[in-house]
Amino acid sequence: MENSGFGNIETHLRNIEHGGVTSAKGFAAAGVHAGFRNDPERLDLAIVAAREPCPAAGVFTQNVFCAAPVQFSKSQFEKSSGNPGYGTARAVIINSGNANAATGAQGIEAAQAESQLVADALSCASDEVLVASTGVIGVQLPLDPFRNAVPHAAESLSSESGADAARAIMTTDTVPKECAVSFDGSLVDMPGTTFTVGGMAKGSGMIMPNMATMIAVLTTDVPVSDVDLHKALKSVVGETFNKVTVDSDTSTNDTCFIFASGHAVEPAARQEAQAQFSSGTHAFQVFRQTLLHVCTVLARKMASDGEGATRLITVNVSGAASAEDADAAARTVANSPLVKTAVAGRDANWGRIAGAIGRSGAQFNQTDVDIDIMGIPVCRKGMTQPFDEEEALRRFEEPEIVFDICLGAGDKSTTVWSCDLTHDYISINADYRS
Amino acid sequence: MENSGFGNIETHLRNIEHGGVTSAKGFAAAGVHAGFRNDPERLDLAIVAAREPCPAAGVFTQNVFCAAPVQFSKSQFEKSSGNPGYGTARAVIINSGNANAATGAQGIEAAQAESQLVADALSCASDEVLVASTGVIGVQLPLDPFRNAVPHAAESLSSESGADAARAIMTTDTVPKECAVSFDGSLVDMPGTTFTVGGMAKGSGMIMPNMATMIAVLTTDVPVSDVDLHKALKSVVGETFNKVTVDSDTSTNDTCFIFASGHAVEPAARQEAQAQFSSGTHAFQVFRQTLLHVCTVLARKMASDGEGATRLITVNVSGAASAEDADAAARTVANSPLVKTAVAGRDANWGRIAGAIGRSGAQFNQTDVDIDIMGIPVCRKGMTQPFDEEEALRRFEEPEIVFDICLGAGDKSTTVWSCDLTHDYISINADYRS
Repeated sequence: MENSGFGNIETHLRNIEHGGVTSAKGFAAAGVHAGFRNDPERLDLAIVAAREPCPAAGVFTQNVFCAAPVQFSKSQFEKSSGNPGYGTARAVIINSGNANAATGAQGIEAAQAESQLVADALSCASDEVLVASTGVIGVQLPLDPFRNAVPHAAESLSSESGADAARAIMTTDTVPKECAVSFDGSLVDMPGTTFTVGGMAKGSGMIMPNMATMIAVLTTDVPVSDVDLHKALKSVVGETFNKVTVDSDTSTNDTCFIFASGHAVEPAARQEAQAQFSSGTHAFQVFRQTLLHVCTVLARKMASDGEGATRLITVNVSGAASAEDADAAARTVANSPLVKTAVAGRDANWGRIAGAIGRSGAQFNQTDVDIDIMGIPVCRKGMTQPFDEEEALRRFEEPEIVFDICLGAGDKSTTVWSCDLTHDYISINADYRS
Repeated sequence: MENSGFGNIETHLRNIEHGGVTSAKGFAAAGVHAGFRNDPERLDLAIVAAREPCPAAGVFTQNVFCAAPVQFSKSQFEKSSGNPGYGTARAVIINSGNANAATGAQGIEAAQAESQLVADALSCASDEVLVASTGVIGVQLPLDPFRNAVPHAAESLSSESGADAARAIMTTDTVPKECAVSFDGSLVDMPGTTFTVGGMAKGSGMIMPNMATMIAVLTTDVPVSDVDLHKALKSVVGETFNKVTVDSDTSTNDTCFIFASGHAVEPAARQEAQAQFSSGTHAFQVFRQTLLHVCTVLARKMASDGEGATRLITVNVSGAASAEDADAAARTVANSPLVKTAVAGRDANWGRIAGAIGRSGAQFNQTDVDIDIMGIPVCRKGMTQPFDEEEALRRFEEPEIVFDICLGAGDKSTTVWSCDLTHDYISINADYRS
């Protein structure tokens, strides 16, 4: 899908400082210490709740070893809509420290029990509570921390607590990841109304720590139906979170939820507004582009915060014969330990990039390939180019290292984000459980 | 292809102590310092030569960015047989320190020039000389080191110099890799004759240093035609070198050659013997199984010597629905940085193995999966199993860490070799060019 009629959406978006999952109207959140982790200072339980049940959608891991919370949340959606990707929901509860994966039937029962505790605390139907977990796998999820903490968390739900929730879902993340933007209703023929999209995410862009890569919760006060929410979310996740990679696309627990309260619009006008935002319309495109912006910001934050990372790596591939080729080439470069260690070593080693695209499966001729590193032409028509290594070293001081690769085989392009591979990655992952 | 009639070939093979690329009759080798590297103590040029032109075959990288020596050697074969995979050859020349990759037409001319220098020194046709290179890419291959060293190397060719040749082709390898075995002719209805298969290889099992992963030269005195050699080599490489992996199958320079002198048999009987060893026969199977043994030994040596490696990782996958599924599952585990860092951390973290097979694309149900680490059942029917962590730690002291993964989805199986991912890997690859 392309921008249509409103030009570059970026110029119309207003960034909300310290914005996050509670910036959109109609949402509250809480982040508390429940006891999944030993450190009493560490928040490990988050709840995000809409003021009343609202359209919601989810995108989940494709991993065969998908965890109990994923199976359970899909079944929750299925109960309300007949489809595992969307439905009506009131809240989501997320714990860190235990992934509730490889836990069999007992794991599903635990997910059911925690959703019931939230439903009791919020006085809603248990079918309306989604769940997600991240942390160690293969350990049964204890219920006592939920029993002790959920009532307190529900009481402390507030539109000011988005930051606490973002902190509670962290695992090896070094910083919480939040973003929110708003746009004026004049953009969608509804002047005087302000619409907001925001969210939070956790995950190391590098790779999942113990298979609990990425969880994101997005919220909006734009009135959108559950079906359309799912449509927007699926396409946006494909262009953002799924383009953050190092060695895989999906862990056992990967989950991205979105809730749409519709609260930007008065209750009486909400149904009509939802029709205005239905897919295929200009307004839907504005919403989708806004969601794309928010998810791009969160995805880049995930990649920058990759385990042990010192540099964000942005891989732009153009001139591909197909979208699949563009993705394969960019992803193979982004996943290459040799490329990632070269960036850690501040080495403009384009040979490693060439080796990666050459084995990616993308169709091209080596004599058509151009490669730039940080704007410096290092390869033209498949041949090495002399360049100023001092200047390259200077540019490697930037926090973001950009590769531009043109395959010369077509007109398809993509962007994938990754990060460098450093000693700290080894330290983090060789000692994770100890 | 299965063993047929001779039981386990291993019991019939005699290991040749310190054996290598010159163990088979009819071959000589040399390893000298030519000047591709600065250190005058470091050998960087190898020649392996048959006493006279003989059947030969090659398997090459599939990388689109294939290097000049690969393109040139294929064209050499093509000149003699019309097929780029086999033909008649007298010798192969290999340099380390420069991969002659991304060097365009000038790189092909350099390959042609070095082959001519060898042909002149050996008084053979230049079409009969194969070439291979390994090292830094994107730098034109200098010819002076060849001009200076080839005559001397040709003079020093000896059946005692296999070890020098094996040392001369090393890049980040820490040890040379050689192997040779013989079997008695009684195994193939030719009692009184001893047949030998040997070879040398270079390459870090982990991943290619600057894209110059793996080069192997195999020799045998078994009389086999070029077509049958190619058939045996292709299938054996698929089960051995191509099963050593970390993040890719083929670099720009990957090359495996085999030469068959036929010298185990007297010249007068050689043609008849070649017919006896033609593909489809029992004797061919014995030859192929012997070649499989030699290549398995070399492949395991490559994996053990992975950059920074402290442990060989052997991934056995069984119960797969197809050979492709078995390979995908085993390869994804072997390539997973999380699995590899867990081994470096001596952590029996089966969740990371489950995560890898789950995203491998292999078809299975998580409730059918069994996983053993070093013989310890850690997962049964997809569920975590209690095990003695102390005992697991003890077993992690072994030099080889074995994972046995049964997908419970069929009867196909495979083995892939890898190594652990340590701090030294980062040090080696972040500083390779400096």
